[in-house]
Amino acid sequence: MGALGECCLGGKPGCHGMEQMLLVGGEEEEIRLGPELECGGGIEDAVKVLLEGLGEDPDRDGLKKTPLRVAKALRDGTRGYKQSVHDIVEGALFLEAGMSNRVDRARGGGGLVVVRDIGLFSYCESCLLPFRVQCHVGYIPSGQHVVGLSKLARVADVFAKRLQDPQRLADDICSALQSSIKPLGVAVSLQCWHIHLPELGRKNPCQRHTSSRSNMQGWHELDVCSYSGIFEDEGGDPWIEFAAVLKFGGVNVGRVEEEKEKEKPSPLQNWCPLKSPEMVQCIGKASSKLVGTLPDAMVAAVTSILTSLGEDPLREELVGTPQRFVRWLMTFRRASFELKLNSNFHLGQLGLYSAKNSGGDIIGSRSKGEIVHSELSLPFCSQCEHHLLPFYGVAHIGYLAPPESKIIDRSLLHSVVLFYGCKLQVQERLTRQITETVFSIFCGGVMVVVEADHVCMVSRGIEKMGSSTATTAAMGQFAANLEAKTMFLQTIACSRAAGG
Amino acid sequence: MGALGECCLGGKPGCHGMEQMLLVGGEEEEIRLGPELECGGGIEDAVKVLLEGLGEDPDRDGLKKTPLRVAKALRDGTRGYKQSVHDIVEGALFLEAGMSNRVDRARGGGGLVVVRDIGLFSYCESCLLPFRVQCHVGYIPSGQHVVGLSKLARVADVFAKRLQDPQRLADDICSALQSSIKPLGVAVSLQCWHIHLPELGRKNPCQRHTSSRSNMQGWHELDVCSYSGIFEDEGGDPWIEFAAVLKFGGVNVGRVEEEKEKEKPSPLQNWCPLKSPEMVQCIGKASSKLVGTLPDAMVAAVTSILTSLGEDPLREELVGTPQRFVRWLMTFRRASFELKLNSNFHLGQLGLYSAKNSGGDIIGSRSKGEIVHSELSLPFCSQCEHHLLPFYGVAHIGYLAPPESKIIDRSLLHSVVLFYGCKLQVQERLTRQITETVFSIFCGGVMVVVEADHVCMVSRGIEKMGSSTATTAAMGQFAANLEAKTMFLQTIACSRAAGG
Repeated sequence: MGALGECCLGGKPGCHGMEQMLLVGGEEEEIRLGPELECGGGIEDAVKVLLEGLGEDPDRDGLKKTPLRVAKALRDGTRGYKQSVHDIVEGALFLEAGMSNRVDRARGGGGLVVVRDIGLFSYCESCLLPFRVQCHVGYIPSGQHVVGLSKLARVADVFAKRLQDPQRLADDICSALQSSIKPLGVAVSLQCWHIHLPELGRKNPCQRHTSSRSNMQGWHELDVCSYSGIFEDEGGDPWIEFAAVLKFGGVNVGRVEEEKEKEKPSPLQNWCPLKSPEMVQCIGKASSKLVGTLPDAMVAAVTSILTSLGEDPLREELVGTPQRFVRWLMTFRRASFELKLNSNFHLGQLGLYSAKNSGGDIIGSRSKGEIVHSELSLPFCSQCEHHLLPFYGVAHIGYLAPPESKIIDRSLLHSVVLFYGCKLQVQERLTRQITETVFSIFCGGVMVVVEADHVCMVSRGIEKMGSSTATTAAMGQFAANLEAKTMFLQTIACSRAAGG
Repeated sequence: MGALGECCLGGKPGCHGMEQMLLVGGEEEEIRLGPELECGGGIEDAVKVLLEGLGEDPDRDGLKKTPLRVAKALRDGTRGYKQSVHDIVEGALFLEAGMSNRVDRARGGGGLVVVRDIGLFSYCESCLLPFRVQCHVGYIPSGQHVVGLSKLARVADVFAKRLQDPQRLADDICSALQSSIKPLGVAVSLQCWHIHLPELGRKNPCQRHTSSRSNMQGWHELDVCSYSGIFEDEGGDPWIEFAAVLKFGGVNVGRVEEEKEKEKPSPLQNWCPLKSPEMVQCIGKASSKLVGTLPDAMVAAVTSILTSLGEDPLREELVGTPQRFVRWLMTFRRASFELKLNSNFHLGQLGLYSAKNSGGDIIGSRSKGEIVHSELSLPFCSQCEHHLLPFYGVAHIGYLAPPESKIIDRSLLHSVVLFYGCKLQVQERLTRQITETVFSIFCGGVMVVVEADHVCMVSRGIEKMGSSTATTAAMGQFAANLEAKTMFLQTIACSRAAGG
C-alpha cells in the first residue's frame, strides 16, 4: 500500500511473527522477551519522549510499561503491511460447478455474495488516531469459483491494519479482491467514524441495545464506496442489487457522481477532525495557551515512530501528521490542569446557587430532610495512561445537600469532570478524584458513576468491540446509605430508558 | 478446571505457539506447515471418518482441507487449556494510592469496577457445539491495586476457550479473578446462548440495528452468575450496585436462591438442547429413521478428538458427548435428503393451489400481466462444509407466475429450503439450488435471497461477531428484468422495516 506495499520492517526479519504470537497468547506484558524485543526499541524510546513532553514521570507505576505496550499495539495495528492478500486468498478458492452456467450472468441476474458488517479498526494517517470501520463487501463470482467467506473479512483487515484514509482503504480492499479472486466485479462500502476532540465529547457513548454502528453518535462519520467490473455502472443491476441487500440490512449506500465531485471539495478533506481549519484553530488556541510552540523533540519522536513502522514520513499524506498527533496529545498535558484550575475553576466562589433554581433532579427527600441532587451524562474524553489511547464517556454525579443549601451549577460539575479527565488517566482514579472533589464541597455525601468506552479494549489485542466499562465511587452518607444509593442508580436507569 | 487445568498437550511442546502464530496472520490454510503439522494429525484423521460417515467424499474440492480447518479451529477454540491466568494478571496490577483510603469500603460504598458486554464463544461440553456468551465482570479493588481493564476480558476468554457449561464458566472466571487479583470480591454475570436444532431454525437472525445480544432470538438462552467475597450477600450494597450498573446497561441480573434451587431441577439440566428429553426424542426419531444406530466409527472418532485436545472422555460431564455430537451431525447426512424427498417432497403433485388463495405477497403486476409472488423469511440451519460448523438464517423466494396459474404453498417452499439446507453446504450453492428447483416449476422467473449468520465467521479465526452474509440468485425474467428484481428486493426491505 502506497509507500511500502509488502515490504518487511527494517531490522531483524522474523521478529514480528514472534511478537504476534505473543499477542495471541494474551500476555503481551508478561512473557519474557528474547532478542526480538529490540525491534520495538525505537518506538519505545520515542514514547518515553512523548511521556516526558506531557510532563509525566515515565517511571511511575502506571507508565513504566506504557512504551512497551504502545510499541506492541502500533506494531499489531499496522501488521497489514507485512501480510499478503495472495497468501490469504490462494487455497481458499472453491470450485462451484454451475455457478455461472444456469444462473445466467450474461442476462444480468444472480450470483451476488455480500458479507455485511465486518467490524474493523484502522489508523488515520493524518493524525495517527484509530478510526472505526463498518465494512460491507460484495462480489459476483466468475469462472465457477467462490472464495471462502471469511477471506473477505481477512483481506479487509489486511488493509485496515495500516495507516489509511477511508477512500483509499475502500479502494485497496476492492482492487485486492478484484485481482486475487478475479470475479465479475467487487463492491465495497465503508462507514467510517473518527474520534472527535476531547472537548466535544459525546452525549451518551454507552447506550446499549443498539447496533455496533448506531452507537457512534458524536463521532465524525464518513461513508465511502469503491467498485470494479460490472459494479461500475451505477444504474446497472449489480450495483442496485448490492445497494438493496445493504438497505434491508439497514445500510444506505450512496455514490458520489464523479462530475459533481470535481466541482466541490472532496469530503475526505474534512475527514480528519484534526485537519479541519476549525479544529486546528480550536486545538491551536488551547495548546498555544498551554505549551506555546510544539516541542521539537516530541514531533521528532513521532516522526521516528513512523519510520520504525516502515513508513516514509515524507509521503505526501503523512506530512504534518506528527505535528497533528503531538498537538492533540498536548491537550492532555499535566500542566494544563493547573492552568484550567486557575482560569475557570474556583470552587467555593463560583457556581453555587440556590437549590430552588436547580437544574438537577430532586429525586426524593431523605429522613434527615436532605435532598439527593443528580447531574447525569456529563461527557468527557480522557487518555488511557496504559496505552496512550482515548477513553471517552459520561460521568453521573449525585450528592446530598440540605433543602436550603446552595447547589452546584451543571457546567461547574462538568468542569470538574473535564479537569480530571483531560490527562493521562485510569478510569478508577478519575472516578475517585471527581468524588473527592465534589465531596470537599458537599460533605453530606457524594456518589459518582463513570461509564466509558476504551479504545484500547476494542482497537487492539483482545479486540472486544461493544464492551464498556463502568466505575463507581461513593463517600459520606452515600457510602453508608443503601436507600440514597439505590435512588441515584435508579435515576440513571430511568434517564437511560428515556434515551438520555 | 476439571480434568486438565494448565496441562500441555501430548506430543511436541511448542507446536501450539506456532499454530497460533499462523492463525494470527490469517493464513491458516495457506502457509507451508513444518513438522508441527503432525500434532493435529489425530484430529484430522477423525474428521475424515466423520465426513465419510456423512456419506461425503473427503477428497472433493470443498472438503479436501476441511479436516485441517476443523483441527485448527478446535485447537484454537480450546487454547484456554494452555493459558495461565497468573501470567495474564501478573504485571497488570497497578498501584492506585487512595483507592481504599478515602473511599471507605468499610462503610460500604464505592470503588466498583465493571466491564460490560465482553463477547465470547465457548464449546458446550455436552455436545461440542459452540455457544455464545455475553459476559459482564465486576470487582471491588483492595490493597490499593487495580487490574488493567483488558485483563478482565482476557481472563474470561481463557476459560471460554475450553469445553464448558455456563455455570462452571462463570465460576471459573470468578474464582480465577478472586485468587489472582485478590480484591474485596468478584461478580460475574453471563448470558449464554446455545444453538438450536436445525429444524427449529430462527425467525430472523439477520435483523440489524440491534445489539449483539438482542438478535439471539430463537437460541436457547441461560443466564448464570457467580460471586465471591463481599458480593456474596445478595441484599448487600456491592451486589445491588453491580446489578444496578448492569441494569442501566440493559441487563437484568437475577440470582437463584440456593434454598429454592435444591427443590427444583437445576436450569443447567436443560441447558444443552441436545440433552433435553424432548430433543433426544426428536433427533432420535430423525436419525434412527435415517441411519439406524449410531456408527461406532464416528463415535470413536469424536472420542479420539476429545483425547487429542487433552480432555478425558471419561470425565463425568463428557460421557455421552461423542454420541450427542454424532447424532446431531447425522441429521446433515447426505442420504437423509433422498429420504426426505421421497417422504414429503413431491413437486408437481402437491402444494400447488390457486393464486387467489395465496399467502404470498402480490407486489405488482408486470407488463405481460404476470404477478410477482414472494415468500419471505423461511428459516433454515445448514452446515458449513469448510468448517463443520452451522450457518443459519432465512431464505426469501420470489417468482413470477401468470395471474391464473397455480402458486406454491409456503410450507412446500420451506421444504425446498430445508432439503438443500440440511447437509454440508456453502451458502452460494444453497442459493443456486433453491433457485433452480423453484425455476423448474415456474419458468417465468425466480429470485432467491439467502441471509445467514456463519458460526465459523464469529467463533474462530477472524472472529467478526455481528457480521452476516447475503447471497442472491435469479433466473429467467427475474434475471433480465430490473423492475421485477427491484420490486422483490423492496418487499424484503419493507418486511424487514416492519420487523419481519
